[in-house]
Amino acid sequence: MIKVGIVGGTGYTGVELLRLLANHPEAVVEVITSRSEEGISVADMYPNLRGIYDLKFSVPDVKTLSACDVVFFATPHGVAMKMAAELIDNGVKVIDLGADFRIKDLDVWSQWYGMEHTSPEMAELAVYGLPEVNRAQIKDAKLIACPGCYPTATQLAFLPLLENKLIDHRRLIADCKSGVSGGGRGAKVGMLMCEASESMMAYGVHGHRHLPEIKQGLALVAERPVHLTFVPHLTPMIRGIHSTCYGVLKDPVDHDLQRLFEERYANEPFVDVMPAGSHPQTRSVKGGNMCRISIHRPQNDDTVVVLSVIDNLVKGAAGQAIQNMNIMFGIDEASGLNVVGLMP
Amino acid sequence: MIKVGIVGGTGYTGVELLRLLANHPEAVVEVITSRSEEGISVADMYPNLRGIYDLKFSVPDVKTLSACDVVFFATPHGVAMKMAAELIDNGVKVIDLGADFRIKDLDVWSQWYGMEHTSPEMAELAVYGLPEVNRAQIKDAKLIACPGCYPTATQLAFLPLLENKLIDHRRLIADCKSGVSGGGRGAKVGMLMCEASESMMAYGVHGHRHLPEIKQGLALVAERPVHLTFVPHLTPMIRGIHSTCYGVLKDPVDHDLQRLFEERYANEPFVDVMPAGSHPQTRSVKGGNMCRISIHRPQNDDTVVVLSVIDNLVKGAAGQAIQNMNIMFGIDEASGLNVVGLMP
Amino acid sequence: MIKVGIVGGTGYTGVELLRLLANHPEAVVEVITSRSEEGISVADMYPNLRGIYDLKFSVPDVKTLSACDVVFFATPHGVAMKMAAELIDNGVKVIDLGADFRIKDLDVWSQWYGMEHTSPEMAELAVYGLPEVNRAQIKDAKLIACPGCYPTATQLAFLPLLENKLIDHRRLIADCKSGVSGGGRGAKVGMLMCEASESMMAYGVHGHRHLPEIKQGLALVAERPVHLTFVPHLTPMIRGIHSTCYGVLKDPVDHDLQRLFEERYANEPFVDVMPAGSHPQTRSVKGGNMCRISIHRPQNDDTVVVLSVIDNLVKGAAGQAIQNMNIMFGIDEASGLNVVGLMP
Amino acid sequence: MIKVGIVGGTGYTGVELLRLLANHPEAVVEVITSRSEEGISVADMYPNLRGIYDLKFSVPDVKTLSACDVVFFATPHGVAMKMAAELIDNGVKVIDLGADFRIKDLDVWSQWYGMEHTSPEMAELAVYGLPEVNRAQIKDAKLIACPGCYPTATQLAFLPLLENKLIDHRRLIADCKSGVSGGGRGAKVGMLMCEASESMMAYGVHGHRHLPEIKQGLALVAERPVHLTFVPHLTPMIRGIHSTCYGVLKDPVDHDLQRLFEERYANEPFVDVMPAGSHPQTRSVKGGNMCRISIHRPQNDDTVVVLSVIDNLVKGAAGQAIQNMNIMFGIDEASGLNVVGLMP
Repeated sequence: MIKVGIVGGTGYTGVELLRLLANHPEAVVEVITSRSEEGISVADMYPNLRGIYDLKFSVPDVKTLSACDVVFFATPHGVAMKMAAELIDNGVKVIDLGADFRIKDLDVWSQWYGMEHTSPEMAELAVYGLPEVNRAQIKDAKLIACPGCYPTATQLAFLPLLENKLIDHRRLIADCKSGVSGGGRGAKVGMLMCEASESMMAYGVHGHRHLPEIKQGLALVAERPVHLTFVPHLTPMIRGIHSTCYGVLKDPVDHDLQRLFEERYANEPFVDVMPAGSHPQTRSVKGGNMCRISIHRPQNDDTVVVLSVIDNLVKGAAGQAIQNMNIMFGIDEASGLNVVGLMP
Repeated sequence: MIKVGIVGGTGYTGVELLRLLANHPEAVVEVITSRSEEGISVADMYPNLRGIYDLKFSVPDVKTLSACDVVFFATPHGVAMKMAAELIDNGVKVIDLGADFRIKDLDVWSQWYGMEHTSPEMAELAVYGLPEVNRAQIKDAKLIACPGCYPTATQLAFLPLLENKLIDHRRLIADCKSGVSGGGRGAKVGMLMCEASESMMAYGVHGHRHLPEIKQGLALVAERPVHLTFVPHLTPMIRGIHSTCYGVLKDPVDHDLQRLFEERYANEPFVDVMPAGSHPQTRSVKGGNMCRISIHRPQNDDTVVVLSVIDNLVKGAAGQAIQNMNIMFGIDEASGLNVVGLMP
Repeated sequence: MIKVGIVGGTGYTGVELLRLLANHPEAVVEVITSRSEEGISVADMYPNLRGIYDLKFSVPDVKTLSACDVVFFATPHGVAMKMAAELIDNGVKVIDLGADFRIKDLDVWSQWYGMEHTSPEMAELAVYGLPEVNRAQIKDAKLIACPGCYPTATQLAFLPLLENKLIDHRRLIADCKSGVSGGGRGAKVGMLMCEASESMMAYGVHGHRHLPEIKQGLALVAERPVHLTFVPHLTPMIRGIHSTCYGVLKDPVDHDLQRLFEERYANEPFVDVMPAGSHPQTRSVKGGNMCRISIHRPQNDDTVVVLSVIDNLVKGAAGQAIQNMNIMFGIDEASGLNVVGLMP
Repeated sequence: MIKVGIVGGTGYTGVELLRLLANHPEAVVEVITSRSEEGISVADMYPNLRGIYDLKFSVPDVKTLSACDVVFFATPHGVAMKMAAELIDNGVKVIDLGADFRIKDLDVWSQWYGMEHTSPEMAELAVYGLPEVNRAQIKDAKLIACPGCYPTATQLAFLPLLENKLIDHRRLIADCKSGVSGGGRGAKVGMLMCEASESMMAYGVHGHRHLPEIKQGLALVAERPVHLTFVPHLTPMIRGIHSTCYGVLKDPVDHDLQRLFEERYANEPFVDVMPAGSHPQTRSVKGGNMCRISIHRPQNDDTVVVLSVIDNLVKGAAGQAIQNMNIMFGIDEASGLNVVGLMP
């Protein structure tokens, strides 16, 4: 059994790791840390875990964590970069669900995250954990930077088009809608049910931290810098991201875009290209690790519309992290992730 | 008092007319029709109206309706065009909340609505009831075609940019999110709470009936045909439309877009241009007739993002219809429409 | 015009006072206070009020408030009792939407609210502002203690039965369901949309502060102390209270309970006894000041079930406060309160 | 592997069986029927099942179904009683999630379900599938009548009190709140998101079909007929039942009710007695088969309040059906049911 440690287990990605790992056949959670909740049982904080886990939150400590085979960081940015190097030196694999190692250009990182990066070597060592792009490197990685939720849904939508240079890299738009769990478990007025339900709003239109991450990923496959307009919206539902992606065909002749996507993702266990003409619903992936995609070219004009849905807490966070772990440890990539979306 | 008749009062736009007209100081509902609910009291169907109205649904009948000063049609397409001419002949003003008279090119109309148009003269006579564009014509109109909900939010977002020819008319995108009341009160599986809540989905990406209507309106102000990609989404809330509109600046120099919008709408009672950097919430207009707009130019790049929110049942339907009525009858345009949005 | 001051205008009952008073024909808000938001425009905090109010929050100050005819306290308990006496001395009428003056037995008050009561004279002076019971005293009152939300819905449900001594005063049960706006605008984890939506839970079963208030009110009409089991539940909706009240008939013969309720509330503008067999929906009163009630006696057994719904922020708070103001100033009791419930 | 057939797989309990059985280690779905959807792939109807099932709906047919080891009926009442006898004759075990065999007194059954019962022998043969009461009989049963959702939550709440004759059997109240999935997937106006969300209402107060079922179950353990007032409420959430149960202690001395419940359910894999003072949330069991219970005695008075929550589609339907199957086939009772509740 793979011995797992989780740093920062009180947030929504932490409890989601616990939910998914509870049914993982080859991994067991041995340590879970939270400075603020030390000594509290996880089942007292998350009653859905009563009878499932007998763990208590402990103070994060490199020595204790070093007894694990892998440590997940479900922490705000700035935490993982302080501990990752020492854990890796001790032979522990590290998977960061936060933002510390997602961006290779550390000046860009500092500009968007408002602090100095204190671990440039680790940032260089880190592999960006999007299996659909980096599976080979993930296999041998010691440190994984798990993609953000918007970046996962959006990159999977654009990849086949940019890899094949079909669309104009200067005219990309991602209009994204996220459920409120993306905002985390912190007590903020804007996330109260009275404020966030029964309403829709955009936010961060001037610039969101996921923008440079998406641009970095798309630039790599496009083999040139891209222009992207990224508008996130807060949507009145708990889970789910719906990314509506717009691209302009460079050559508006007849393309078999449906086939392009189907072939690109034919062997991917967690990308499902839906039949032509479909509209994926976020609820079809609620609680599961799937990304569902459909491709449209309205009125046969030169604009392509790709619809991409994930559960932000699963394929957008904890599920993808476990998918990375499975790849790193050479076990079935889908272990523990065969969760059927909860409908209704 | 203006004597009002309502044809098709059982749907959501019908009951919304009743809610708003209940507090109108110069109008009174005298007739409300519904073939299927004949003899039923409106208060039995809509208990929020108990004690407010003593009306019963009657079978629609031109003679009875001709005793009214104005008749609203809150009906599916195909109904108003059968009755409008006779009512107008009898001196009644007609305001159609449905789609019968929205599109001037009747071939286009037939193609999208799947039937022959039986009243071309009325279609020609009709004034498109968007006061922010057509106030003068509305004043003298006998027949108003009330704009659809998506078209209202989207046209108000694009107007100042297209009127001033600032953006490329071939690269318009409207990514729109609508609450489920836009789907009406018909019993459809997809609109069940179990199906529509806690989920987000696009629909009609290949083509939606509001597309030709928006294009017609934008072409008029742009003074040329426009290319528009329009993607509507079903959003898990009851009321509200959030239209996120993207345009590409033809000349990406410095523009004072904030000022442009503020000046364009300075005298409009129901368009509120928010301060620079704002993100309007649909809930801020819930139950009210306001359209709230904010303008962004992310990273000072060449893409402009306009955010526009309305209540689809008010400014997107019943409220705008009453606004038209007020203009037609020469009374205060805001009569009966000073409803403050319900927050929380 | 009645000059109105509001102390504590940043919470949900404060903004609800503003919403309702915006359309009051005989009152105008002149002062609104908030220590934490001094200098902020109310429209910046509550964008639904943009264009409606030009007010800024000011620091609460007796002198400024004394220029008002009436001051509403929309504050947590402990605030109004510090300022009420001085305002009343200055000739200002005071309406407290909080809990300071609701309970006559100050030992009981202290026990439930965890502090000493510093203004016993005011507590004695205060009239409990439930118009359906105390209209005459409200007319001449200088200080009103507005009922809590659960107490309003529950007392109106039990009143006719207890006034007529039809049910056993030792066997009262109120199973109440409240929308999350009852929890206020404070940033609490339990009120986040992720925590409170898509779930149902009871809370405070061991004892809730509204319990002694309800018991006091019911004891007065029953003319003896009552036993009441009161179980509040947090319900996944923004607004609304549904109080399901159970009583045991002392003499299980045939009673015309429907008629009893209809006659008791025949002249009440804000209590609507529904037809026999009805089930009121909270949404039928959303945004309005109505209390809708229906009476059932299942299987003609000895248990009576009364269903009572209100909007907790309106008839349960701000609307009832304005109703009290209208009575105190001798104007139409329904002034500013003719708001039709928002359906859908 | 246990070969499973499902009759009536298009409703919410049908798709829930599919979701849960997808991860069952010892069962495989071989047949799924739906007269109206014949030939349609289940994955086309329920996209969360894409890639999981390759099944198509077929017309229900005794011969085909007889190749199964067990057949679940997820059908409206009246269907299972037509087919059960023949299947059982063919050696197939039958588990009815509908109401055909729940009530032993067929006169009572006919009165509440409005039709004649056509299979009295089967009704007599059937075992009521509440494992916490009938585990031994279930083991040897050929035909299981799965309890309704309200009856499951309510009986588990009252059982320990009635088995020990601690409460007055004439004064039982169950105030129950159900998510809208309890209303099924039929297209009914009242279940539209516009109608059912953001509102709370009671229904069927005069009498609901689950009333005689609950009374039958409680009478058996109380060893005498019971009086029960049962008030169901439609709650604005998709899944979950919260049953708030009230009983009157016959002897209001000191009882260790907490211990009573803990001991009663100590060996039950799917009943979780929470710590004293707790309030279970329905979301803690969302998607899982657990029933969470807490016991209160407010103000140490004579009224006991038991709070009981389940997921109506799992422990209240499909999960409990699988639990019965597991018992019948002598495999681990929790097989396929170790699903952690989805929080948030």
